[in-house]
Formats: sequence, C-alpha cells, structure tokens
Amino acid sequence: MSNHSEAPVAPVEAYEPPYYVAVFSTVRTPNQNDYSETNARMEDLVKDVPGFLGMDHAQTPGGLGITVSYFRDADALTEWRTNVEHRAAQERGRADWYQSYTLHVAKAERSHGFLRAEARQSPTAG
Amino acid sequence: MSNHSEAPVAPVEAYEPPYYVAVFSTVRTPNQNDYSETNARMEDLVKDVPGFLGMDHAQTPGGLGITVSYFRDADALTEWRTNVEHRAAQERGRADWYQSYTLHVAKAERSHGFLRAEARQSPTAG
Repeated sequence: MSNHSEAPVAPVEAYEPPYYVAVFSTVRTPNQNDYSETNARMEDLVKDVPGFLGMDHAQTPGGLGITVSYFRDADALTEWRTNVEHRAAQERGRADWYQSYTLHVAKAERSHGFLRAEARQSPTAG
Repeated sequence: MSNHSEAPVAPVEAYEPPYYVAVFSTVRTPNQNDYSETNARMEDLVKDVPGFLGMDHAQTPGGLGITVSYFRDADALTEWRTNVEHRAAQERGRADWYQSYTLHVAKAERSHGFLRAEARQSPTAG
C-alpha cells in the first residue's frame, strides 16, 4: 500500500477549503531507537482514518523536521488524535525521541498549487 | 539582526490562538541561481511585517522543503502577500526555482508545545 522510500514528485495538493492542517515541528534527541518502525506504522495507520487527505514531511539533517497532515474535518483529526496506537507513539516520543516539538492545528481558509508546465506528464491524481 | 547559519534549538513556539499559519511546501528545480540570496532577503523582510510571529523551515536533501510562517492576524498575512519585493520573488520562483509547490493558509484553533525538562536551560523567550 505504501512506499516510504519513494521521493515525492510533488507536495500534497491544494484542496478546496475548508479542511484541517496539522503542523508538527520537531527537534529530535540522539535516542532514535524504534523511531523509524513506529513512524512507518503511523504513516500506514493514518491512511485508514476517514477524511485523511495526505501528509508531507521534510527533515533537515541534524535540524528541524516538519510533518504536515491534512484532514477533511475536525472529526477526522479527533479520530487520529485519540487513536490508541497513535497515543502510545506520542508518549514514546515525549519519553525518548523528541527534544522539543510544537503542534499547530488550523483550519484552512485558502490554498493554491503550482506545477511547472513541463512537469505535467504526471499530474497529481485528483 | 538575523543569523541564518544558526541551527534552531526548538521550533517556533505554540502561540495562543487565534493566529495564522502559512504552509509552503516545495519541490525545487535544478536551477537555483540567486535562490539563497533571495531567500535570505525574504527571511529578513518578513520580520518587519507587524504581526509576524516566526518561521520554521525544513528541507529534505533532494526532496521536499516545507516553510511554515506564523502571523498574528489576516492583515499581517495580506501585508506580506502583497509586499512588492516578495511578489517579485514569487514570480522568480515560478519562473526558475520551483518544480511544484502548494500553499495552505489556515487559522490556528489549537496548539501546544513540548520541551524536554533537561533542555530548559535555554527556554524560548516569550
């Protein structure tokens, strides 16, 4: 179902508002035991949440990581926030993996996307 | 005023809602002529916008870049969006630097931050 090693060809598309954006910005500790496995599991699990729209991630080596998740409505976010496996991962994150993080949950009011004309041979599936 | 080479010790803090979040996710082209200089100039310029709260950036080498900017209100966002130098940089970005991008503008409803206890010798200035 998922292919974690494949580089994105484009960021998550600009959906029609309203929808929700969850920005999770992190600085990690040196202790990253089990992080990759848990992260891969969470990436699979969130796809099962009705109303999940997509996720973008960027990681500066040795610096900040930013994960932005997109959800259709507040119910979808609540389901993800309260998922039992996700809650356990959050606790593990605070215990081991994160030096600091900030979470911002926001309702999108406006969005737009850009794709270079010469790259249109493989547009985002709608 | 700014020090672009200094690594962040923590992401931008969790402000009290409401405030605005602008998520700008990009895939870049091989043509990055003048990008660094323009980016540094934009980082300085946005700090002069009344209501600008902060900015986080992460860049996966060869992959996605995500910049998240925080603003106190819609007026601050409008001022930044319509800034003449910023508009010129946006045009240059579409002409040269970006393969694709998505911009999401959203109003924060909820936020929280985490900082490990042993890292508290240098808390974020409030």
